Amino acid sequence: MPYVNLKLLGKLTREQKAEIVKEFSETLERVAGKPSEHTYIVIDEVEKENWGKGGKLFSDM
Amino acid sequence: MPYVNLKLLGKLTREQKAEIVKEFSETLERVAGKPSEHTYIVIDEVEKENWGKGGKLFSDM
Amino acid sequence: MPYVNLKLLGKLTREQKAEIVKEFSETLERVAGKPSEHTYIVIDEVEKENWGKGGKLFSDM
Amino acid sequence: MPYVNLKLLGKLTREQKAEIVKEFSETLERVAGKPSEHTYIVIDEVEKENWGKGGKLFSDM
Amino acid sequence: MPYVNLKLLGKLTREQKAEIVKEFSETLERVAGKPSEHTYIVIDEVEKENWGKGGKLFSDM
Amino acid sequence: MPYVNLKLLGKLTREQKAEIVKEFSETLERVAGKPSEHTYIVIDEVEKENWGKGGKLFSDM
Repeated sequence: MPYVNLKLLGKLTREQKAEIVKEFSETLERVAGKPSEHTYIVIDEVEKENWGKGGKLFSDM
Repeated sequence: MPYVNLKLLGKLTREQKAEIVKEFSETLERVAGKPSEHTYIVIDEVEKENWGKGGKLFSDM
Repeated sequence: MPYVNLKLLGKLTREQKAEIVKEFSETLERVAGKPSEHTYIVIDEVEKENWGKGGKLFSDM
Repeated sequence: MPYVNLKLLGKLTREQKAEIVKEFSETLERVAGKPSEHTYIVIDEVEKENWGKGGKLFSDM
Repeated sequence: MPYVNLKLLGKLTREQKAEIVKEFSETLERVAGKPSEHTYIVIDEVEKENWGKGGKLFSDM
Repeated sequence: MPYVNLKLLGKLTREQKAEIVKEFSETLERVAGKPSEHTYIVIDEVEKENWGKGGKLFSDM
């Protein structure tokens, strides 16, 4: 019953999202024996103004 | 001091959100003795392109 | 496909957890039309030393 | 390697976000010895209709 | 700057965790161009008593 | 109504947690006008075996 939340900076195409969902699900099935049917994956695309690293927003770098 | 994060696919009406918040809060008060005043509930409405299950995006099903 | 994460202070009994999971799932089915079979609920029981409010840890109140 | 997720009601200006990211990162470096370079901070600005407290949505208060 | 949170039922061995971290990171680098050096992955192993599905705890199934 | 979730590698002392909660709450009050009384902060201390970076677990570095 895995649940995966992926947060990343910027946007992905639908093709990229589909590929990531496919690969993550297959990895969890192959490595941990979790049937891919039960794996939920939620993707959050975060704007540069809402992600900080090293004390700064990405929009200010 | 409960904090609840609800993620679901698609959109809800304001009436549905209000009803869910009311019911979840009452459940936590009745079952676990948590005063509803202290319960925070955050709802994330996720697009089909950002939720995968069974190795596929919902937008591709 | 709802996913719910509940965080609360302290411990619950198994009976309380079971009742919360039942009630939350029924609410999502009744109010939002989400089949309870697809609802995942993850409960995190947080220690007083790891939850702050009003600028203080609960373990220091 | 801290990861911080901040959820709050309503919108912040970019200046407010930048200041929060700076302060949180400095706090983690000063208090816990975590180099600010390794601290990720993700900010979620939540609409009133998607946050409940006391059994009600903020949009209904 | 991806951040991944994986929640799953039960325990994994260290070898399984290492393999999942390796595969997820490589997928994000190959598909989305995210340098693996910047990818954080946090794994939460959840007890059966703390995960519900279909209105029931896994510990009661 | 801010909610903050801090995840970090390893353990903190209670004094460190108390100081972080105090500082984060004051920052949100000073910068964003959020009364510290309404700020919840949850701290997750993550083991080295459960955090990956650069494709490796910290326990394997």
